[in-house]
Amino acid sequence: MIRPMDSVKMIAFDADDTLWVNEPLYRGTEERLHALLAPYGDPEAIEKQLYSVEMRNLRLFGYGAKGFMLSMIETAIELTRGRITGAEIQQIIDLGRALLLSPIELLEGVEEALQTLAGEAAPRLMLLTKGDLLDQESKLVRSGLGDYFHHVEIVSDKNENTYRRTLERYGLEPHEFVMIGNSLRSDILPVLAIGARAIYIPYHTTWAHETVREEELEGRGVVQVESMREALEWLRGKIVTG
Amino acid sequence: MIRPMDSVKMIAFDADDTLWVNEPLYRGTEERLHALLAPYGDPEAIEKQLYSVEMRNLRLFGYGAKGFMLSMIETAIELTRGRITGAEIQQIIDLGRALLLSPIELLEGVEEALQTLAGEAAPRLMLLTKGDLLDQESKLVRSGLGDYFHHVEIVSDKNENTYRRTLERYGLEPHEFVMIGNSLRSDILPVLAIGARAIYIPYHTTWAHETVREEELEGRGVVQVESMREALEWLRGKIVTG
Repeated sequence: MIRPMDSVKMIAFDADDTLWVNEPLYRGTEERLHALLAPYGDPEAIEKQLYSVEMRNLRLFGYGAKGFMLSMIETAIELTRGRITGAEIQQIIDLGRALLLSPIELLEGVEEALQTLAGEAAPRLMLLTKGDLLDQESKLVRSGLGDYFHHVEIVSDKNENTYRRTLERYGLEPHEFVMIGNSLRSDILPVLAIGARAIYIPYHTTWAHETVREEELEGRGVVQVESMREALEWLRGKIVTG
Repeated sequence: MIRPMDSVKMIAFDADDTLWVNEPLYRGTEERLHALLAPYGDPEAIEKQLYSVEMRNLRLFGYGAKGFMLSMIETAIELTRGRITGAEIQQIIDLGRALLLSPIELLEGVEEALQTLAGEAAPRLMLLTKGDLLDQESKLVRSGLGDYFHHVEIVSDKNENTYRRTLERYGLEPHEFVMIGNSLRSDILPVLAIGARAIYIPYHTTWAHETVREEELEGRGVVQVESMREALEWLRGKIVTG
């Protein structure tokens, strides 16, 4: 399964929770929502309701912070049977605004790995992320990592078609493409399904929607490493996993 | 100023109010918001407040329907000094949901022009639009026009840098690129500024943010036509304007 690094022409990186901290910021926002709605329900009920509203809205609103804000508002309205006030809803919007303005905290080893890879003649580096267009662009700018990437692709979803189109767009064969990310559902399984390679770096906090049952991984040849540093070593053929 | 059509390698089309009706749907939604908030203010005051909230939020939320929904909610909260109820805010969210699901109405002559251009060996056709990623993708699918375009670019804003990056990405010289659109601010002036060409097809309804004062157009060589049919004729060198 391992091929020499010199067949790889493009390495694509997921952004949220692969390059920088993201899901914990959403969890923190949710905790603030729990506190705000404490008179109307316990944290568990609010969490359950929010997830159900998010899943209902996903097809229409897509991924990202603004859809999350609208889903938090709908959750509050439903939990209070419409009795919540505008002033309280303003507080929810302000939670979302703070989320959009959160400072970017890079994950360990990320900058070093990008620096090393960008210093080599090949392969080219791509940021490939889903979410709100402006929010993802803004995070990239604030991360200071923008200059390491030759290409940036922000997409509405990451499925097999997304990856097929991306490879086509850049004139790449599947064996020339490697994806690195923390979501089995978005970064790993669809990439393996189209015959390209993927490196899975689990993150301690994963949104329920992105989780995949262990059974679905069997026989897929998922390459799993502990850190971006290990991903770099794998790319150089120094370690063999999976 | 007119060059023969065979130097053009890419024709890019704006989407909203160039290919299909959009701004009137937003205006219709605003009118429904006026009705909903009638107890709290007259239409003029609501419109003024909404525009001011939208401008304040633009840098953080960007263009598109979800930002518009959040700005409508904030407008309602501010106008009622927080007294609006959750049930009323749910009605605002439902207005936004209906907006996102509006049927696509193509503008006159659009499908014929695309059909004609797509049937020719060159140039290539691009859709180049700003707004919410998923919303714009969904509108393109529902428009039935998807197959006419070789490339689709959905961007967070359309300024000189956007156009420079787009030309670079496709390896195009400015004289090889033509943009067609209804917004002087987004589709025409920045394109002329980088030395490429642009065809302006005014639309009867334009969002205040996209309007440009007449004085700013002087000496810019803006090519203005009445319809997509005329744009096609201009491209073929059959009519000379500007």
